[in-house]
Amino acid sequence: MVGKTEKTSKKNTQGLSVTREEDFSEWFTQLIQKAELIDYSPVSGCYILRPNAYHIWERVQAYFDTLIKKDGVRNVYFPLFIPESLLTKEKNHVEGFAPEVAWVDYGGDTKLGERLAVRPTSETIMYDAYSKWIRSHKDLPLRLNQWCNVVRWEFKHCTPFLRSREFLWQEGHSAFATEQEVINDTQKIIDFYERTFREIYAIPTLQGVKSESEKFAGASYTLSVEAFLPNGKAIQGATSHNLGQNFAKAFDIKFKDGQQQDQFVWQNSWGLSTRSIGIMIMMHSDDKGLVLPPKVALRQVVIVPILFDDSKKEVLAQARVIQEKLEKKGISVELDDREDYSPGWKFNEWEMKGVPVRIELGPKDLEKKQVMVARRDTGEKQALLIAGIDNEVSLLLEQIHDDMYANAKKLLDENIIEVDSLAKAEKVVSGGKLVFAPWCGDGDCEEKFKEKSGAKSLNRPFEQPKLKKDQKCFACGEKAVFWFYFGKSY
Amino acid sequence: MVGKTEKTSKKNTQGLSVTREEDFSEWFTQLIQKAELIDYSPVSGCYILRPNAYHIWERVQAYFDTLIKKDGVRNVYFPLFIPESLLTKEKNHVEGFAPEVAWVDYGGDTKLGERLAVRPTSETIMYDAYSKWIRSHKDLPLRLNQWCNVVRWEFKHCTPFLRSREFLWQEGHSAFATEQEVINDTQKIIDFYERTFREIYAIPTLQGVKSESEKFAGASYTLSVEAFLPNGKAIQGATSHNLGQNFAKAFDIKFKDGQQQDQFVWQNSWGLSTRSIGIMIMMHSDDKGLVLPPKVALRQVVIVPILFDDSKKEVLAQARVIQEKLEKKGISVELDDREDYSPGWKFNEWEMKGVPVRIELGPKDLEKKQVMVARRDTGEKQALLIAGIDNEVSLLLEQIHDDMYANAKKLLDENIIEVDSLAKAEKVVSGGKLVFAPWCGDGDCEEKFKEKSGAKSLNRPFEQPKLKKDQKCFACGEKAVFWFYFGKSY
Repeated sequence: MVGKTEKTSKKNTQGLSVTREEDFSEWFTQLIQKAELIDYSPVSGCYILRPNAYHIWERVQAYFDTLIKKDGVRNVYFPLFIPESLLTKEKNHVEGFAPEVAWVDYGGDTKLGERLAVRPTSETIMYDAYSKWIRSHKDLPLRLNQWCNVVRWEFKHCTPFLRSREFLWQEGHSAFATEQEVINDTQKIIDFYERTFREIYAIPTLQGVKSESEKFAGASYTLSVEAFLPNGKAIQGATSHNLGQNFAKAFDIKFKDGQQQDQFVWQNSWGLSTRSIGIMIMMHSDDKGLVLPPKVALRQVVIVPILFDDSKKEVLAQARVIQEKLEKKGISVELDDREDYSPGWKFNEWEMKGVPVRIELGPKDLEKKQVMVARRDTGEKQALLIAGIDNEVSLLLEQIHDDMYANAKKLLDENIIEVDSLAKAEKVVSGGKLVFAPWCGDGDCEEKFKEKSGAKSLNRPFEQPKLKKDQKCFACGEKAVFWFYFGKSY
Repeated sequence: MVGKTEKTSKKNTQGLSVTREEDFSEWFTQLIQKAELIDYSPVSGCYILRPNAYHIWERVQAYFDTLIKKDGVRNVYFPLFIPESLLTKEKNHVEGFAPEVAWVDYGGDTKLGERLAVRPTSETIMYDAYSKWIRSHKDLPLRLNQWCNVVRWEFKHCTPFLRSREFLWQEGHSAFATEQEVINDTQKIIDFYERTFREIYAIPTLQGVKSESEKFAGASYTLSVEAFLPNGKAIQGATSHNLGQNFAKAFDIKFKDGQQQDQFVWQNSWGLSTRSIGIMIMMHSDDKGLVLPPKVALRQVVIVPILFDDSKKEVLAQARVIQEKLEKKGISVELDDREDYSPGWKFNEWEMKGVPVRIELGPKDLEKKQVMVARRDTGEKQALLIAGIDNEVSLLLEQIHDDMYANAKKLLDENIIEVDSLAKAEKVVSGGKLVFAPWCGDGDCEEKFKEKSGAKSLNRPFEQPKLKKDQKCFACGEKAVFWFYFGKSY
């Protein structure tokens, strides 16, 4: 068995030394290295996204970028550096971010006149420009997005994907003439995130409103999508913030309305990051390694020919025909024709790397004009005729996506427990499930529950079950105002 | 007329106050702001890429990314920060970059143990990983690329696109088992760059080898593509560096060959940046503003309906039909149906923004079942029947690309002057043309010519005209070794 932090060549990548059940965190750490998703860098808390991981991000980018562009959002690029004086313009915002800003103070040998923040997020530098660009209601709405890196110098324990000092994301920043528009748009973006998690990652999410204490620094309110992982923890997937007029006032972003009156704009900002890749890995993977939803897999199918000296030529020729047929269908295929590895070794390697479908093909299959097809998610194997293999595999990939989603949905649904008292809520949390409870909305109750159980408030679903008449807050016994999700959370 | 550095709303964007001929630099500065490509940021030397500019970069990315992926390169993402100790491992490399590195030394309130460079380029951090990943000849070739931001803290005068303290680029980094492979690949990448400039930017380039003094810090040699601009200056478009085994030795990147012998790998690195957008703007644009090659235009066609009260409805309906027809052909179309701007005002605006084709449509055109179609590059107008407009405009966009390329090629060809003496070379350079001269290759000659004329060596073309017997170096009179391009250069 391979030691746990060993940085290794391909030869040593096989096998995880712990199960997901035994040690979730160690399982994750081994898996992301052995599946060649991540490597460590010389800078603590900064990680290398290897091709297998970066491809996932490219698929997410393609999907989400298309969604927002069709909806009228345009892409831009703003500078990485933000002068300290600009970062500190909105009071709540800077309080939220200043403790974890990386500061540049030298260019070559020259000390800078004012130190520069490496962007932790771009509200301040973007809205400085918005205040120049927006003059009239005709300039609205202004809806811009950028795909970029951001830096937050975490002092907590870093974990690849989930908490890293540098990460990749998109940040959208829109300005509108009316409050209703920003309310609608902030919600629409959450719907886009829900679709992205569902359609690309095969992950169901809980959509709702964050509590006051968990909202974005500088926002009126924050909407989120939250996922529930097999280890009993919840995790925030993406957020959309209604900023109200807070930044408009701090940055003096005004427009003349139809009556030539000056008005402050209404703004939102919204982000989805490479953290989502970590969520996906944790959600679907198993003790054999990574399990990838087909839509993000760099290789959707791997063909492993079973090679004997007397039939090698025919088997490889047939394997190439199958590869071509599948590629014509838009399926990405790796033909693993390496001769110095055994089929069994290859099976393990591609299972570790999460390839959704494996096709095995030997001389006996050839005789029967069929191949063996194995699913990575379930391990099921079936014989399929080579004629029509392209259609069959296309359908199978769709089926795999749907089944992975359904499994994750089942996990989520089975782990939401309605409770009406603090004692029950604590029990639910200690059992690794999610609490759904009537809450008065008071921060003290949230805090008290957190101290007792370690659970954080997640969000308040948009669609609320009706509260009973005189329904009481699960924590303080005062009148409940809404239902809310709570759970242990990353 | 509008003041030259005014940051303005749409109302004030019309008109450049200088011609390209009068003041190229001022013309460029006004144009990039009024065409809404660029805005200034609060950090000197760092610029905002607005949607019109960022879209160009996305088109370049899509084209070049497809080229390299089809060729087997894979995308990755490495950290932004490089520890000082790592950056300084290859001696020539650090000497080239250290003077312009931006340094991070604080995370929040905590001083870092070792200061971190904001990547000026990623050889050092990537090759540190390569030394771990590469063990066997089976791990080769390793061909990785990343699209990212880099920072070089310039102390010279910054110019948007051409010289900025932060810019966007792709950097490719490959490692091979043999010298021949790296030689071939370094050349292949230059061919890819040539194609990108030709096919996307409609720009011809000179491809060749940089001189010793102009090569990349740490390279064995550097290949480049160079463009020639209408103001008489050359500009480097992209570079591909054969690194030999220099970094392999500094970073100990070794592999076991087929005979189990340790060998150092052979490497190259190669980059194309947002500087190329500036080259394109300078190459094609005119006194009315930006001229965009169709393949990078955010809007390829703008439809300007001529609206009168009694025919507005019919004209707009027909305009929408045309828009739909063109969009079905994959052409991006903006229908400018704003009623509070005159057609003339709109013509000026879309000319400033470089939209390749304008379609005008009024009630009289409707009667004749035709529209007026104007080309941005030549200003030519022609009437086209609405039936078949989609095919006609498709062909026209292709024609525009080809004509723009042909014009730039003519400019280049007419401005290359063969010379055989220093005196003639100086005259050619002061006349704003390019020198093509037999050179001995000695750095002293290059330096002497630069001091006298301000011209730098550009590159040595791969296809060399035959040197005459006893052909002398244009600068020193010793034996010439090859033909070389020289010129004033950005």
